[in-house]
Amino acid sequence: MSNKPILHTSLSPVLLHLYDLSNSIVVIIDVFRATSTIASALYNGAKCVIPVDTVPKAIEISKSIGGIPAGERDGMIAAGLEHGNSPLEYPREFIENKTLVLTTTNGTRLLHMALDKNADTVVSGSFPNLSAVCDFLVKENKNVVLGCAGWKDRFNLEDTLFAGAVINRIAKNFEIHCDSSLMAETMYIKNKNKIIDFAPKLTHYHRLVERFGLIEDIKFCLTNDVANVLPIYRDGKLTCNTSFQ
Amino acid sequence: MSNKPILHTSLSPVLLHLYDLSNSIVVIIDVFRATSTIASALYNGAKCVIPVDTVPKAIEISKSIGGIPAGERDGMIAAGLEHGNSPLEYPREFIENKTLVLTTTNGTRLLHMALDKNADTVVSGSFPNLSAVCDFLVKENKNVVLGCAGWKDRFNLEDTLFAGAVINRIAKNFEIHCDSSLMAETMYIKNKNKIIDFAPKLTHYHRLVERFGLIEDIKFCLTNDVANVLPIYRDGKLTCNTSFQ
Repeated sequence: MSNKPILHTSLSPVLLHLYDLSNSIVVIIDVFRATSTIASALYNGAKCVIPVDTVPKAIEISKSIGGIPAGERDGMIAAGLEHGNSPLEYPREFIENKTLVLTTTNGTRLLHMALDKNADTVVSGSFPNLSAVCDFLVKENKNVVLGCAGWKDRFNLEDTLFAGAVINRIAKNFEIHCDSSLMAETMYIKNKNKIIDFAPKLTHYHRLVERFGLIEDIKFCLTNDVANVLPIYRDGKLTCNTSFQ
Repeated sequence: MSNKPILHTSLSPVLLHLYDLSNSIVVIIDVFRATSTIASALYNGAKCVIPVDTVPKAIEISKSIGGIPAGERDGMIAAGLEHGNSPLEYPREFIENKTLVLTTTNGTRLLHMALDKNADTVVSGSFPNLSAVCDFLVKENKNVVLGCAGWKDRFNLEDTLFAGAVINRIAKNFEIHCDSSLMAETMYIKNKNKIIDFAPKLTHYHRLVERFGLIEDIKFCLTNDVANVLPIYRDGKLTCNTSFQ
């Protein structure tokens, strides 16, 4: 038996309970768009991102601390929030030294599920911070669960492709006996040189681009390392892992 | 908008509730081995297969009707049952005109979940009856949910590959906007000419072959149309759909 830590991929929030999170780093993956937005805000100097699971909580907490209440439901800025879930809404001149209080349909919900299931460590992953995630996982040398947020519990390919990208880079450091991981890496290898061209095949692409015109968001969310920080959850908030960087 | 019926793929029993089964034909897929065994027994002349969800029920029902109590838990013949879940255990000279009362870890459980969710029609699919399944789905012209049984709710690739094989044959007859289906077909196309060679990569292969030596089962379960009947569920039992054949 090898002494390598074990890596699994969970393809939907409803599959997360099948994995032992209490001894694992859980990577929350919501490529379109929560985890890309979290990377973008922190890369551009946000003090922290507070992920919350409901719109009323986002409003209440942001009022009490002077933060920015942001997020979406079904792809649109939710009623009562000031900002949405676009990584392009948070350039440095706007977000630096501010606190984003973010609630989203899938990603922040999955993050709270992982906390409820006593995840050892929770970090946030997306193509914009792919390298930071991979470097962290290799350095920590602990078991990993790559947690895809999907769309309202359905499987989606963009989160799976990101899981595959991580596996493709770090597989040799882990024990992987998991059909989900094998599939994710295979799908990633097949599409890695044409991910933006592949995007129109995704159901989520139609939701974001045809309904909301968010093609620039899509491009940002599918580009490696354009916001290469490692958001780590501690004490109720996501901050850059400066001890690591 | 097209008038074609809609096809979805459910990658695990815990995802099944996300789809509207009441207007759909649900194809139960448990390649290793329940649905391959069901096809084999019916192809070889079994009167019917009664799928039950517990071992005590399999024993009780088979006693009361003079059937054969069969099935497995965790890959082995369960205590109290006389036969297992191998498609090769049911040649014509043994099974003809008999009733198989079958309980398995994943496949028969998923079938009962589909019934509980008021599926319009339930059929059983596996590579040994691939063509019969495809012909039936095209002829019926109704919405379809391809339901993968997985392993204890985890995603597995063999069931996904079968879903992909079905999609690859009948996609033009259906509306398909479903990342699970896109992934399944992609994985199938990539592996269709080498499925038996691909098998050792599957987690379930290790369970069946390395622990139980069931390589011949694996080969049968991955071979197209060697038991090409259409098992359809009516009134508590699976029988060949003779009105169709």
